[in-house]
Amino acid sequence: MTERLLYDLVASDPRDRFSPFCFRVKLALAHKDLPFRSRLVSFTDKQTIAFTEQKLVPVLVEPDGTVICDSIKILEYLERCYPQAPLLTPGDVSFGFLRAWADRSLLAAIFKVLAPKIHALLDGADKPYFQSTREQRMGITLEALAKDESKYRRILNTTLEPLRALLQAQSCVSGAKVGAGDMLILACVLWAEGVLRAPLVPADDPISAWRERMAPWVNKAQTMAAVV
Amino acid sequence: MTERLLYDLVASDPRDRFSPFCFRVKLALAHKDLPFRSRLVSFTDKQTIAFTEQKLVPVLVEPDGTVICDSIKILEYLERCYPQAPLLTPGDVSFGFLRAWADRSLLAAIFKVLAPKIHALLDGADKPYFQSTREQRMGITLEALAKDESKYRRILNTTLEPLRALLQAQSCVSGAKVGAGDMLILACVLWAEGVLRAPLVPADDPISAWRERMAPWVNKAQTMAAVV
Repeated sequence: MTERLLYDLVASDPRDRFSPFCFRVKLALAHKDLPFRSRLVSFTDKQTIAFTEQKLVPVLVEPDGTVICDSIKILEYLERCYPQAPLLTPGDVSFGFLRAWADRSLLAAIFKVLAPKIHALLDGADKPYFQSTREQRMGITLEALAKDESKYRRILNTTLEPLRALLQAQSCVSGAKVGAGDMLILACVLWAEGVLRAPLVPADDPISAWRERMAPWVNKAQTMAAVV
Repeated sequence: MTERLLYDLVASDPRDRFSPFCFRVKLALAHKDLPFRSRLVSFTDKQTIAFTEQKLVPVLVEPDGTVICDSIKILEYLERCYPQAPLLTPGDVSFGFLRAWADRSLLAAIFKVLAPKIHALLDGADKPYFQSTREQRMGITLEALAKDESKYRRILNTTLEPLRALLQAQSCVSGAKVGAGDMLILACVLWAEGVLRAPLVPADDPISAWRERMAPWVNKAQTMAAVV
C-alpha cells in the first residue's frame, strides 16, 4: 500500500521543522490518527514539490494519490474524508475571524520576533533567499528586527492578550473541547518554540497552562512526523 | 403596558451616547425589532442605576420588570426570550475568541485614540472622574495619549488588519449573514464614529464597505434609541 506523504519545511538541521502551516497539518493528522511519512523540503527546494505546480508547503499526498496544497484546504479535505475526531464545527461562524487573526495578527507578531533567529538556523542558498524575500515582504531588515527585539516582544505580548483572557475563561480556544482554533494557535506556538528553543510564554501565563494540556497532542504529532 | 427601558451612557450633550457596550444592546434590540425608551446616565450618575446593585451600564429593564446588566448577558437574555432574528449561532465555538479580541484588542486600541476626545466631550464631575479612572486603568495620562495620537492611530490600524482581511473574503463578520460578531465590532465602530465625528477608516478600506452594508441596521438602532 502506498503511504501518505507530508512535504514539510526544513531548516539546515533536519530536526528543525517548524513551519506553522506544516504544523497545522501534522496536528490535524495526529488528531485523526492518520499515519504519514515526512518528506523534507528546504526553503529554496522548489523542485521537490514542482509536481504540485505551486511553490508552497505543506503538500499532502494521500495513499490514493490525491494531492492537496494549503493547510486550510488540507484540513477541510481531511475533515471531509476522515470525519473521526472532527476539528471543524458546523455553525462555527466566527472561525473565519479566528483564522484571519491567526494569519494576520498572531503570525505577523511572532514572525517579527523569530525572523532573525530563523535566518540563523538556515544555510546555503536558503539563507539569502529567506533574508531577501522576508525583508521585502515586511519592509524592514532582519538586522533592524533583531536590534529592536524587546519592542517586538512587547508587541507580541499585547497581541496575545485576547488569547490569554479567553484561556482564563475556557479550557480550549474552540470552547470546552479541542477544535480547529486550537490547531491554528498551537501551530504558531510550536513554530515559536521550535525557533526559540524555549517556551513562548512564561509558566504563569494562562496560555502556558493551555499549552501543557495540549502536550499529548503535540507529542503524538511530533512522533508521527519524525518518520521520514 | 410598561415600556422596555435601556439605561444608556451619555456625555455632556444628550445626543452624545456612544458607549460601545450600550451600542451592543441598541443594535440587538433593533435587530429583533424590540422597541425601547432610553434613560440617560452620565459617567458619575451611579444613583440612577443604584437599583441594579452594580455601577455599570447598559442596564435593560424589560416590560415585565426583569432587570439585566452586562451587554453579553443582555444579548443572551434577548436571544432566549425573543428568538426572532437570531444573532448567536449554536455551534459558534470561535465566538468566545472573537469576543475576547473585541474586548481586549479592538476596544483597547480604539480607546487609546478616543480617550482624550471623550474627555473633551464631558463636563462637570464626569470630566475629572473619567480622567482619573481611565488614566489609572491604562497606566498612561490622557495628555500622553493625545501627544502620541499618530502612534496610537498606527497601532489601531494594525489591530484592524484581521478584520480587514476577513471582510475582503466574506460579507459579514459572522460569515454570510449578520451575527453577534458583527454586533460586537459594529458597536466599537459606532463608538469611534460618535467620538471622532468622522468615519473610523477611509472609504477605500474593506471595513468601510462592510460599515455601509450595516447602515440600515445602524440607522434603525439610532432612531429607536432617540426616544427618551
